[in-house]
Amino acid sequence: MKKLINSPDSVVTDALAGVAAAHPGLAVDIENKVITRAGGPTPGKVGLVSGGGSGHEPLHGGFVGYGMLDAACPGEVFTSPVPDQMLVATRAVNAGAGVLHIVKNYTGDVLNFEMAAELAQDDGIEVVPVVVNDDVAVQDSLYTAGRRGVGATVFVEKIAGALAERGAPIADVAAVAAEVNERSRSFGVALTSCTVPAAGKPTFELGENEIELGIGIHGEPGRHRGPLTPAREVVAVALDAVNSDLPVSGDVLVMVNGMGGTPLIELYVIYNEVHKYITGKGARITRNLVGNYITSLEMQGFSVTVCQLTDALTELWDAAVDTPALRWGR
Amino acid sequence: MKKLINSPDSVVTDALAGVAAAHPGLAVDIENKVITRAGGPTPGKVGLVSGGGSGHEPLHGGFVGYGMLDAACPGEVFTSPVPDQMLVATRAVNAGAGVLHIVKNYTGDVLNFEMAAELAQDDGIEVVPVVVNDDVAVQDSLYTAGRRGVGATVFVEKIAGALAERGAPIADVAAVAAEVNERSRSFGVALTSCTVPAAGKPTFELGENEIELGIGIHGEPGRHRGPLTPAREVVAVALDAVNSDLPVSGDVLVMVNGMGGTPLIELYVIYNEVHKYITGKGARITRNLVGNYITSLEMQGFSVTVCQLTDALTELWDAAVDTPALRWGR
Repeated sequence: MKKLINSPDSVVTDALAGVAAAHPGLAVDIENKVITRAGGPTPGKVGLVSGGGSGHEPLHGGFVGYGMLDAACPGEVFTSPVPDQMLVATRAVNAGAGVLHIVKNYTGDVLNFEMAAELAQDDGIEVVPVVVNDDVAVQDSLYTAGRRGVGATVFVEKIAGALAERGAPIADVAAVAAEVNERSRSFGVALTSCTVPAAGKPTFELGENEIELGIGIHGEPGRHRGPLTPAREVVAVALDAVNSDLPVSGDVLVMVNGMGGTPLIELYVIYNEVHKYITGKGARITRNLVGNYITSLEMQGFSVTVCQLTDALTELWDAAVDTPALRWGR
Repeated sequence: MKKLINSPDSVVTDALAGVAAAHPGLAVDIENKVITRAGGPTPGKVGLVSGGGSGHEPLHGGFVGYGMLDAACPGEVFTSPVPDQMLVATRAVNAGAGVLHIVKNYTGDVLNFEMAAELAQDDGIEVVPVVVNDDVAVQDSLYTAGRRGVGATVFVEKIAGALAERGAPIADVAAVAAEVNERSRSFGVALTSCTVPAAGKPTFELGENEIELGIGIHGEPGRHRGPLTPAREVVAVALDAVNSDLPVSGDVLVMVNGMGGTPLIELYVIYNEVHKYITGKGARITRNLVGNYITSLEMQGFSVTVCQLTDALTELWDAAVDTPALRWGR
């Protein structure tokens, strides 16, 4: 295992210390493993909390800041954060208007966020959860009942964050979060495995010319394995899966996301094929992201997420955001 | 070779088509391989042109836009662009105030930019070159007489771009570019090699537990190879090299840059060690970048670049920028 770390035991806390040192706009509670905005909660604003295993950076800590999340709870690598972390985060961002929990659909995450919500409600904090489950690859999976939550999480956090920043009530913020999830579909492809530091060996093995179609962000199995084919064919498999689940139409927001070990030049090759595919269906990509947004350590591969936009969602997408990983408009 | 491409021959043009589709703020001349701002040259502004081999994305095309470059010329992977490309770019951005060529110190790049400058001067365009040579690892190298140009290129493009945006004359823009280069030092480390698509096999080989200290961005040899040690020791080797060349002091701008295949969680572990090292020298990191800015395809590893700031340079660093890879302030 070749990694730029001090030890497998300290990788999450060392990285959190790095986040704290790099981003003065964030407050990092290293002991409790909670990242919040440095300024504290915004009076009267709905608080947005997300979290999940580490190893998917910049998700979620990189999305804490103006116009997006109020707090993130990173677990150990590929391991759910614990309810106590989520409770600390929920209390920290509560400004009296309620707190939205944005939860990727993995059994541990869902259970722990439910427990944290109950504890917070005992404190008199209104908590509303939204579960993200956009991965069309498989119905159930390792760690998951139902579909996995993947790339749509970035869209949900951005768009719900923008609405919360405007002072909308929690019911509206939760509704737009659910709407973005319902309008989004994703599919991922792996060229290589990744190695969890504490495990010290690759999570799975792929042959020299083999790829996994429908990979999960923790290396969970997808639909099938096959030979590596040209980018346009790989993209067609991914987008056929997306399109057969929710036909691509109208104006769409697309993310071509690197899994952590994929060079940007390849992501642009993929984006070109995605653009041709979607244009060929008569739809129009009006907004896009190309880069590393929800990763799986050093895995090579990509995922594509398509969200059917409305004018209202486009406007919220365009609203100012100021986080380590997404920043525009101010 | 596992890559998300259609073929080794088309990787650069396919990626350029992806850049064109993704970024409406850019104009991409795929035939000539030149990326400019979509709006054309800004009247009265000095034009900034950079370029170099592809495979280092987002450098340079991802830095074209308001407050930074006016044009970028991508060559084939790890291959200098040709003078004709640079001439097309220079003509395209000429607004009568002269054009700055920002050239990383590799023999092919330097010669080809010189030739392009002569041709442009025949057209009556004033061209001033600035050569970036910030890599302290080795004096001469494959492809290079003198030091290699690496991470400081990002700083030069940002800071000179900000001054040009304010309408400064070309002598001043060139002077600040040279000043940033003189105040900057870099050192890179590789954990793995990378594979140039046309070559089809890794550029070099490293043992299972071996790293290359002082690696170049094309996989050129560094100072020596050694065993992988904890992150804090690797960082100490890198920053001892930087510090013994130009002692770290005062306010500094630091970039912890991923080589393309390094997960962000590891870059934050590295940043934490860099922060401790520099603070321990009595200096202060007042601005930073952590992420993939000048890469080497899918190489795992990192580089660290330190620039000694002045108040004037800090102000130019903070000025608004709007490019695919760096965006703030508007």
